[in-house]
Amino acid sequence: MMDMGTVKSIEWVGELDGHVAIIDQTLLPAKLVVLKCQDLDTIWEAIKSLRVRGAPAIGIAAAMGLVLGVRREPDQDVATFLKRVDEAADYLASSRPTAVNLFWALDRMRCKARAMGTSSVGEIKRALLEEAKRIREEDAAMCRAIGRCGEQLIKDGAGIMTHCNAGGLATAELGTALAPMYLAHEAGRRFRVFTCETRPLLQGSRLTAWELSQAGIDVTVLCDSMAGWLMARGEVDLVITGADRVAANGDAANKIGTYGLAVLADAHKVPFYVAAPSSSFDRSISSGSRIPIEERDADEIRRGFGRLTAPPDVSCLCPAFDVTPARLIHGLITERGLVQPVNELRIREVLGE
Amino acid sequence: MMDMGTVKSIEWVGELDGHVAIIDQTLLPAKLVVLKCQDLDTIWEAIKSLRVRGAPAIGIAAAMGLVLGVRREPDQDVATFLKRVDEAADYLASSRPTAVNLFWALDRMRCKARAMGTSSVGEIKRALLEEAKRIREEDAAMCRAIGRCGEQLIKDGAGIMTHCNAGGLATAELGTALAPMYLAHEAGRRFRVFTCETRPLLQGSRLTAWELSQAGIDVTVLCDSMAGWLMARGEVDLVITGADRVAANGDAANKIGTYGLAVLADAHKVPFYVAAPSSSFDRSISSGSRIPIEERDADEIRRGFGRLTAPPDVSCLCPAFDVTPARLIHGLITERGLVQPVNELRIREVLGE
Repeated sequence: MMDMGTVKSIEWVGELDGHVAIIDQTLLPAKLVVLKCQDLDTIWEAIKSLRVRGAPAIGIAAAMGLVLGVRREPDQDVATFLKRVDEAADYLASSRPTAVNLFWALDRMRCKARAMGTSSVGEIKRALLEEAKRIREEDAAMCRAIGRCGEQLIKDGAGIMTHCNAGGLATAELGTALAPMYLAHEAGRRFRVFTCETRPLLQGSRLTAWELSQAGIDVTVLCDSMAGWLMARGEVDLVITGADRVAANGDAANKIGTYGLAVLADAHKVPFYVAAPSSSFDRSISSGSRIPIEERDADEIRRGFGRLTAPPDVSCLCPAFDVTPARLIHGLITERGLVQPVNELRIREVLGE
Repeated sequence: MMDMGTVKSIEWVGELDGHVAIIDQTLLPAKLVVLKCQDLDTIWEAIKSLRVRGAPAIGIAAAMGLVLGVRREPDQDVATFLKRVDEAADYLASSRPTAVNLFWALDRMRCKARAMGTSSVGEIKRALLEEAKRIREEDAAMCRAIGRCGEQLIKDGAGIMTHCNAGGLATAELGTALAPMYLAHEAGRRFRVFTCETRPLLQGSRLTAWELSQAGIDVTVLCDSMAGWLMARGEVDLVITGADRVAANGDAANKIGTYGLAVLADAHKVPFYVAAPSSSFDRSISSGSRIPIEERDADEIRRGFGRLTAPPDVSCLCPAFDVTPARLIHGLITERGLVQPVNELRIREVLGE
């Protein structure tokens, strides 16, 4: 696999007696610290404290954390060992109780352990490590496929706007929204990325700007409120964001501010794309209006920078996500191809029933 | 003059031997500290360090600062005294070299001193104090007239969005964009104000939220990126912002993010109003495309909260203003009446040739 200078958010280093290396995202962009995780508690804390974030990256961390949690178990009977696996999985699941990928990855690991049948405990441990690595590799391959699908959209000289961090830090590598940019850069095309800082938690300025600049891609940070001004100047040729969840009709939930960007893009005739793996499509939800919007702690706005930036007794709105209707989305960039135009029929054609 | 519980950003307390009381806006919203300014240097520093901000408030501070600077001059010959007036004015003008209201107020004070002819130095000092107080009173009256013009737009139960701080803190009292809200509140109408926090310097969350809540008005802070989401929910009935400069055709320059809000308002069929005194209309400029946009220091984005929030070597965009075209402005709220529809002819009709 070629190295594009992209960051490795999380990886297993060495054999079963090795460790998990995680970039501590809470310290970016001021410091690049790679945590060497040797045990279950360190991984639990890293997930809990958002040192590792992004749904796919959390899933990988949990799977690898499970291996750390059981690798030193004695070569006892398999039933006792499977009990330890369940305990470690339950413990890890408590680190971020709303993260769907966390449960998905832990379930997959539990099933893998059980599917080993009458194997020895040692064999199951090695199989679990292989499974955790496989989860990471599958995610990396999926990101690469999304990148290949979206790369064609990036012409030489383009100005691309993005929001939040749907990049390598949130996934195994390359990311979703950023994957087309990494591949276009590798192909030698020159372009400029504008990343909205993404209040309240500034994933755009802290993380996207950091990982793109690490890869040598020309990146510029702007406040969320400057997007309209920049589009009016004609400097934005396309927008690509990620998505947390896509409904059957193509409506996409993503980090708060995405919807506003899509409206601005529409008003300025700038094509607006959403990059998401097929696993983010929730076909059981007919439209975006049925996606629940999580409200986060108002202190992310009031004290988001460790300083009081609004009166302590004034109420704050803090929705984590908004929903962009399909009619504002030019195309959905998936690992199975480009969904364009965005509608239920076309989604079924590209992703399968 | 009725007291609505609105803040007094700046006022002269007592007679010629009194002092200037200034709310230190750099400490809001964490602390309300009223500075007791007794001399020229304290006022100079307060303007320089943005303790007092907002074009009208700066002009008032400079006029009052000039009085502080010359009030202890001996009863010498008038020519020498006028030289001291000029020296004090020149010194004050150096505090914020791009603030137009600063020069305007200082020139008015200089002219007043000279217009006193053969009066004694003591008489000129008293006349200067009266002139400084008059500048403040005129601004307060103008804000009140803007408030009366815009008050009718605020219906009971309305949701009103605003941006930045065009309020009492930026002016003598009541402000421009906030003046209609203060008067509607005084008239007993109930409504809800949503203030965008206004990155990079957060005047919306730090100042607007503070002064409205001091007056007992229901105010809620949101990140700039949440405006579209809130409009889509149908919670915003109108938007009112201020303006730094309005061109002959009605295009309005205001704090960065205003243009994006106007586009969002248009897409959601929410009326968008701009409140500005006739003195902010620059009829020599035919359209907004001719208004120069100041670029500010990128560190307002990168280190805006005293912490590194973007990689230190990544470029940042930091335009201070953007321009909202007249076609997106539902009406201009001025002290001489409502300009609606917004076009050159109607501006001439309401404001005079």
